[in-house]
Amino acid sequence: MSAGPSPVADLLVAPEAVITVGAPTLDEAVAAQGVPTVPVEWRPPPADSAAAVAEVTADGRLAQANRTAINRMAAIRPRLVDVGTAAELVGIGPHQLLHAGPPVDWGAASGPLRGAIIGACLYEGWGDTPEAAERLAASGGVELSPCHHHASVGPMAGIVSPSMPMWVLDGGDGRTSHSTLNEGLGKVLRYGAFGDAVTERLRWMERVLGPILASGLRRHGPIDVGALIASMVAMGDEGHNRNRAGTSLLVRALAPDLVRTVDDGAGNRAGDVADVLAFIDGNDHFLLNVVMGAAKLVADAGAGVPGSSVVVAMARNGTDFGIRVAGTGGRWFTAPAAVPDGLYLGGFGPDDANPDIGDSAITETVGLGGFAMAGAPAIVQLVGGDVGDALGWTELMYEVTLAEHPTWTLPALGFRGVPFGIDVLRVVRTGVVPIINTGIAGRVAGTGQVGAGLVRPPLGCFTAALAALAESAGAGAR
Amino acid sequence: MSAGPSPVADLLVAPEAVITVGAPTLDEAVAAQGVPTVPVEWRPPPADSAAAVAEVTADGRLAQANRTAINRMAAIRPRLVDVGTAAELVGIGPHQLLHAGPPVDWGAASGPLRGAIIGACLYEGWGDTPEAAERLAASGGVELSPCHHHASVGPMAGIVSPSMPMWVLDGGDGRTSHSTLNEGLGKVLRYGAFGDAVTERLRWMERVLGPILASGLRRHGPIDVGALIASMVAMGDEGHNRNRAGTSLLVRALAPDLVRTVDDGAGNRAGDVADVLAFIDGNDHFLLNVVMGAAKLVADAGAGVPGSSVVVAMARNGTDFGIRVAGTGGRWFTAPAAVPDGLYLGGFGPDDANPDIGDSAITETVGLGGFAMAGAPAIVQLVGGDVGDALGWTELMYEVTLAEHPTWTLPALGFRGVPFGIDVLRVVRTGVVPIINTGIAGRVAGTGQVGAGLVRPPLGCFTAALAALAESAGAGAR
Repeated sequence: MSAGPSPVADLLVAPEAVITVGAPTLDEAVAAQGVPTVPVEWRPPPADSAAAVAEVTADGRLAQANRTAINRMAAIRPRLVDVGTAAELVGIGPHQLLHAGPPVDWGAASGPLRGAIIGACLYEGWGDTPEAAERLAASGGVELSPCHHHASVGPMAGIVSPSMPMWVLDGGDGRTSHSTLNEGLGKVLRYGAFGDAVTERLRWMERVLGPILASGLRRHGPIDVGALIASMVAMGDEGHNRNRAGTSLLVRALAPDLVRTVDDGAGNRAGDVADVLAFIDGNDHFLLNVVMGAAKLVADAGAGVPGSSVVVAMARNGTDFGIRVAGTGGRWFTAPAAVPDGLYLGGFGPDDANPDIGDSAITETVGLGGFAMAGAPAIVQLVGGDVGDALGWTELMYEVTLAEHPTWTLPALGFRGVPFGIDVLRVVRTGVVPIINTGIAGRVAGTGQVGAGLVRPPLGCFTAALAALAESAGAGAR
Repeated sequence: MSAGPSPVADLLVAPEAVITVGAPTLDEAVAAQGVPTVPVEWRPPPADSAAAVAEVTADGRLAQANRTAINRMAAIRPRLVDVGTAAELVGIGPHQLLHAGPPVDWGAASGPLRGAIIGACLYEGWGDTPEAAERLAASGGVELSPCHHHASVGPMAGIVSPSMPMWVLDGGDGRTSHSTLNEGLGKVLRYGAFGDAVTERLRWMERVLGPILASGLRRHGPIDVGALIASMVAMGDEGHNRNRAGTSLLVRALAPDLVRTVDDGAGNRAGDVADVLAFIDGNDHFLLNVVMGAAKLVADAGAGVPGSSVVVAMARNGTDFGIRVAGTGGRWFTAPAAVPDGLYLGGFGPDDANPDIGDSAITETVGLGGFAMAGAPAIVQLVGGDVGDALGWTELMYEVTLAEHPTWTLPALGFRGVPFGIDVLRVVRTGVVPIINTGIAGRVAGTGQVGAGLVRPPLGCFTAALAALAESAGAGAR
C-alpha cells in the first residue's frame, strides 16, 4: 500500500523487554539485573486463551508483521481535502443508512441507535412522524450497514443518511475516508435525539454549512490533519472528548478562505459565512469527526497484514463492542458493550445510560482519546477522576501497545509519542484492555447526551481475535 | 478602588509556613514536626538588606496590606472592549512616543529601542530617512515617556506613536488599559527593526486591522479576557511566549462578528476582513498584547497600598530592569538588565543579544509567563531547558508569591492556581528572583528578533524596593 521504503524506522517498535506479571518482587529482581521490564496489572490470561497465547507468540511471522502494520499506520499523513454528500461520496441511496460499530439490525439496536435512525428517516422525508419512521425501520424498510464498511466513521449512533454532508480525508496512499459534520451537543441526532429541532439543524448543515465549508476548503487547499493532531495534543486536547484547541486551530486556518468565498465565484453570503463561523465557535467538539476520519485512515493502513496482532478498529453500535485486527481481515470480534463510568449531566444518572456506542473509539485505536489523556489533564473535569489518573491511563496503555507515534507527542511526558499500535497478544497476556473516554447517550430513544466518562472494551473481543490469529498461525506460514 | 466587600476570600493568601533556608536537614526536621515548610534555594539576604528585612517583617501593616493588594488584584476581571488610536486613547501628539520599561532617554537607550524610535519616526513621517529620524531623536526632538505612566504596555521596545491602533481593556473597576496590536515576528518595530516593510505593515494595521477589529469587537461586545486566560493556561499557553491557544480562541470568538461587519453599517470589505483573519492566523503571538493589557489592569489594582510588599510592575527598557511595589507608589527601583539565556534563531548567537527589554514581564508580575510554565511544557522548545525545568520554575515561584490565582489554574498541577502576588520581602529573604521568559532582540538597531529564552531580574531592584519599604515602615504606621 505504501510506495518505496517505509519512512518510519524499525526503532518505532519498542525494544524487547521482560514483561513482569504479578508481584512487584519479580519486577524488582529482573530490573536489578539491568534488564528492561514492563510491570503490568496482574491478571493471568483466561485459561482458555493459554493455547492461543502460546500459538501466536510462537508464530514466526508475528514480529515482522507487526512492524509492517505499525510502520504503515505511522506513515499516514491524513489531509482534509473536501466536503461532499454521503450520496456522492459513499454511494448510499434512499432507505439506506450507515451506523456506528459492528453490524447490527433494528431488532438488536439500542435506544439511541433507534432514535437516530428515526431522526434520519424524518430528515430524509422517509416518514412523516416518528411512529411512521419507526414502523418503516422495524419492518426492515431501511437497510443498515456499518460506517466502517464504507471507509467512513461516525460518532455515537454514527447514522449517515444520503443527504448529509461529509468530510473527505486523504491518506496520501490512494485511500480516502469520510465522516459526518459534528452537530454540536445536547439533543442531537448522534445521541439518539430526533424531531423538528434536530431535522432543522441537519437541513441547515446540508444547505449552508456543508457547501460553505466545501468552497472554503477547496479555496484553502488540503489541511494537514496529522500536523493539526500533533499541535492539539500539545495543547490539552486528546482528540476524542477534548477537541477545543483543534477546533480553534481549524477555524483559524479556514476562516480567511471562508470569507474570501463571499467575493469569489462561490458567491456565498457574508451572513451565511458568519453563521458557519458562529456554529463552529459554539461547539468545542467540531473537530472530533475530522480527527476520527484521520484516525480511520491511519488505522486502516495497518489492516490486511497476515500474522499481525495489531488492532485496526475498535467500534461500538450501542449493543456490542467490536474490534478488527490487522491479521484477520475484515472480521469483527464482538462482545456485549459495557456502560461507561463517568459524570452525568444535571438530572441524569447511571440508570439513564446506554451501553458504550460510536465509532469514536477509532481515536483510541491510533493512540488518541483515552490513550493520550496524559496530555489533556483538564479532561478529568468532564470524564471524572483526577490528573494523576489521566497520566496513569496513558502510562498503562504503553503496556499494551507496540510503539509510540512519531509526531503525536506529549510535552507532559517529555515529548514521548502517544501509545500506538494496540497488540491483541499483549492485551490478552496482561489482561489490560484499552481505555476509552466517551460521551454517554441516554438509553431511551430521543433522550440525547446524558454524560461522559470512561469505559473499557470487553476482554472477550480480544480473546476471540487472538483465537482467530492462533488459527491462522496454525494454518499459516510456519 | 473596589466597591463593596472583596469577592476573594482571605484564604487566597497562603497559610503561615516555616521557610527553611539552607541545608535540607533543617527542612526535614521542621517538616517531621508536622509544620508546613517552604524549602528554598540557599542564599542569605545581602548583608546590607538585613536591617530592611527585619524592619519590613516587623511592620504591623504588612500582612493586611498584602491581603488588600492581592485581593484587589485577584478580583479584576479584565475585558477587551475596543480598539482606538494612541492619539485618542493616550493623548500623545506629534513628536511624542511611549516606550517600554522604566524611564530612559535617547542617550541611555539600547540599539533595539533606538531602532524602534527611528522606525516610529519614519512611520509617523517625522523624518524622511533613518538618519534624519535619528538626528531628530538624538537632539531631543522626540519626547519619550514610559507606557506604564499612561495605563499602557508594549512588548519589547514598546514604542507607541500617535497613529498606532491600540486595544482598550476595561478592569471593571473604572480603570482601562491600552496596548498596541501585535505586528508578528521577524523584522518588526518592537524588536528594533525599521524601514519600508515595517512602515508599510504599521500603516496597514492603522488603516485596516485596527478599524476592522474595532467594528467587529463593538458588534461582538466585551470579551472576558480573564476567562480567556483561564482557558489558555489549561491549553499549553503561559501567556508570554506561548499564546497559540489564546490567539486561536480570540479568532473563534471574533470571527463571526468580523464577517457580519461586511453587511452592516460598518461596510467593511470582505477581502479586508479575510486579510485581517489571515494576519492573525499567521501570528501565534497575536494575543500577547491583549494578555499584557489584562495583566496591567490586574497588577495596577494592587498599587498604592501603604505597607504592602507586593510587586505591581516589572518592566525593562533594554538598558535597565525596573520594578514598582504596592507600598511605594509610582517609584521605579532599577538596576542594569541582564542578557537572557536561551535559544537563538539561525545565524545569531549570544553576542548578538540585547539586554532584556519590554513591558511583557507584566505577565510574570501576575503569575503568567515564566511563572506558569508548568502549564506550557512545549515552551521549552522555544526558550530551552526540558519539561522538568518548566515544572520546576513554577514550583520555585510559589516560594516568592503570597497567593495562587483563583481562576488561572494549571491542570498539570492538579488545578493549582498560578503563583500570584510576588513579595519583595520573600524575594530578598530567599534570594529567589522571579523567572521571566522572553523574546531576545538584536542589540544592533534594525536587527529584529534573534532568539528567545529565560532571564531573571537583578536582585538589586528588589533590595532597593525593600529598603524604601523599610523607610516607610520606620516613618509610617507603627
